[in-house]
Amino acid sequence: MKINTNFLKLKPSYLFMEIAKRVNKYKEQHPDNKIIRMGIGYVTRPLAPSVVEAMVAGAREQGEASTFRGYDDGGVGYDFLRNAIADYYKDELGASIAADDIFISDGAKSDCGNIGDIFSADNKVMITDPVYTVYLDTNIMAGREIVYINSDGSNGFAAMPPEGKCTADIIYLCSPNNPSGSVYTKAQLKIWLDYAADNNALIIYDSAYEAFITDPDLTRSIYTIEGAENHAIEICSLSKTAGFTGTRLGYTIVPTALKFDSGESVKALWTRRQNSKFNGVSYPIQKAAAAVFTKQGQTEVKQSIRYYLDNAKLIMSALDELNIPYTGGKHSPYVWFKCDGGDSWATFDLLLNEAEVVGTPGAGFGKNGDGWLRLTAFNTRENTAEAMARLKRVLGKQG
Amino acid sequence: MKINTNFLKLKPSYLFMEIAKRVNKYKEQHPDNKIIRMGIGYVTRPLAPSVVEAMVAGAREQGEASTFRGYDDGGVGYDFLRNAIADYYKDELGASIAADDIFISDGAKSDCGNIGDIFSADNKVMITDPVYTVYLDTNIMAGREIVYINSDGSNGFAAMPPEGKCTADIIYLCSPNNPSGSVYTKAQLKIWLDYAADNNALIIYDSAYEAFITDPDLTRSIYTIEGAENHAIEICSLSKTAGFTGTRLGYTIVPTALKFDSGESVKALWTRRQNSKFNGVSYPIQKAAAAVFTKQGQTEVKQSIRYYLDNAKLIMSALDELNIPYTGGKHSPYVWFKCDGGDSWATFDLLLNEAEVVGTPGAGFGKNGDGWLRLTAFNTRENTAEAMARLKRVLGKQG
Repeated sequence: MKINTNFLKLKPSYLFMEIAKRVNKYKEQHPDNKIIRMGIGYVTRPLAPSVVEAMVAGAREQGEASTFRGYDDGGVGYDFLRNAIADYYKDELGASIAADDIFISDGAKSDCGNIGDIFSADNKVMITDPVYTVYLDTNIMAGREIVYINSDGSNGFAAMPPEGKCTADIIYLCSPNNPSGSVYTKAQLKIWLDYAADNNALIIYDSAYEAFITDPDLTRSIYTIEGAENHAIEICSLSKTAGFTGTRLGYTIVPTALKFDSGESVKALWTRRQNSKFNGVSYPIQKAAAAVFTKQGQTEVKQSIRYYLDNAKLIMSALDELNIPYTGGKHSPYVWFKCDGGDSWATFDLLLNEAEVVGTPGAGFGKNGDGWLRLTAFNTRENTAEAMARLKRVLGKQG
Repeated sequence: MKINTNFLKLKPSYLFMEIAKRVNKYKEQHPDNKIIRMGIGYVTRPLAPSVVEAMVAGAREQGEASTFRGYDDGGVGYDFLRNAIADYYKDELGASIAADDIFISDGAKSDCGNIGDIFSADNKVMITDPVYTVYLDTNIMAGREIVYINSDGSNGFAAMPPEGKCTADIIYLCSPNNPSGSVYTKAQLKIWLDYAADNNALIIYDSAYEAFITDPDLTRSIYTIEGAENHAIEICSLSKTAGFTGTRLGYTIVPTALKFDSGESVKALWTRRQNSKFNGVSYPIQKAAAAVFTKQGQTEVKQSIRYYLDNAKLIMSALDELNIPYTGGKHSPYVWFKCDGGDSWATFDLLLNEAEVVGTPGAGFGKNGDGWLRLTAFNTRENTAEAMARLKRVLGKQG
């Protein structure tokens, strides 16, 4: 059988492997030292108590014939969860979404890739540089041409539409951004939506970090902006909202109004894709997810978000003290700071060897990421504080 | 943006919708009558107690910081589960599989479709008629040409390779078969593997119903047959083995030895696909799955399999009494019987209206399925017995 040769065009996925290699080497040489990890987006706070109890109850229901649940028909999610998410959008995010337009999945990463199934391979895809590499790699696998736009220091790592006619058909945006932590304003999103409308393009809007937005002047969903239901798909997840990185649940909103150039319904195709290639998310996990959207669940998960944002404040305060430019941290668990000397890997090594702190070199996210380093706020308060004391000691020596 | 026009070539997925429509109409007219459903492959027995306890324990671990699990790195499954499955293959199925060749997924259906990502769109795909429609639909979506081979009464609904040079690159086989319940013998699988070897073809072997095989002369994995590691991928699931239809977990075995025509490693591409488009299965669900493969778990799940096989015996015995030809039932939860008059839907209507029993018309699985009807053994003993009494009353009048 013949290979999908597009896979041969992928760059080796070496970023986190290379980080692990360097960290492991350091650990071997210094087995007793305490390394503080602020690299990968691994949340550390456990699931909220009400979420665990809902999952346990769901598991027990699966053990009784009278409450046992089989296939979640069509693989699009149970109504109890789709309704809970629709209510959350209405009450918390201020966006009106039909429950029937919400598709439950095992995570935003899966859907960011799988959504490509319904689009022709000859759509051009616009992505920002630096970028969450899943948008890039999954579209290369599908044989799509990629158009890059620059996020960089000049635009606060929040790229806006390029001048002139758009050559892309599909545009991936992520706000709050991974890796830079930048957030688009409502006005900026309106410009993006107008640009999409003018060019018959679709925006795939990754809102995985929406729960970190606390400023009411910012939006946590693209659907609060006029015209979004005609030009945008929104993909979200509970990984960062509620610590579901290892528990797995996401959702994708495909508005009924959204049409292909040829007039067919995007939602109808996505429904058919999911019916044929997915059998839904585990029932106990859907029960756990529904608990996130209850009043008690929201109180509990917001405590964790607050905790991480307070860690981010410690990071920002250290960088402020050092007069180091950065983006993110305010509405994001990521703080993206400028490396003195402009070399991501050199700064990574400096922090690892001198401060025993692990970050993620921005170069791993694209050429514009070189010269920047990402720190996450997902560690404990104590470790974050200690890491910042070490950072100040090491980076304070520079310049 | 442009549509994937391959979706427009799909036939409407109307089989189960049409069944639901006819059943609902009958129910409206006879609201107090008891309809017995033996149509869709919905298991009815709850999860085994040890499986539920493992899931509950996993859920509680997610609620404690000290035991909390985040991303399952790479999305390929935890070692504890991959090792448990490798041991199961060795001890129960008699096949030697490296744990590292086992990829945990959310179900066989997902992987039957997603595996296509790594193959060129210009591979030709061979499928049997009748067939589990997922193989067909997902390959049409990808734009692949389909070659049909006939499963029918003449070969016991277990099609063998056609004469002459193979024109296909990828061959989907399902044994025990959905919908017909037929099982390939070891000798037949050897013929298939030799055919694949002679023609540089890959067999995608769906063994989702392997747990229903009780005859030690039959094989429950293609990897007990010489050469399979060079020519076959095996996809399985706990849906039917352990009642995971609504709990969701499957696994796909991609042997290290397997190569594309061009020499690249199939496993390397599948790993990259899963790394980029999947984030693994929920930790508590992987814990629950691991419990299936313990001694206690095996004892419990085999009780349910035995229960369903005893239901299948009731079905076979009724058909024997009526002198109606059928396949399946012995090593399968499906019994596939020949309709008097040769019209699936007429027999479906007769059973619904006269016996208040719901089956699945074979026509929904392909042209060779017309004239046959599928019954499942997944109902309770009492309902199965009652359904067979009704069947004998109604079909005994014919002929």
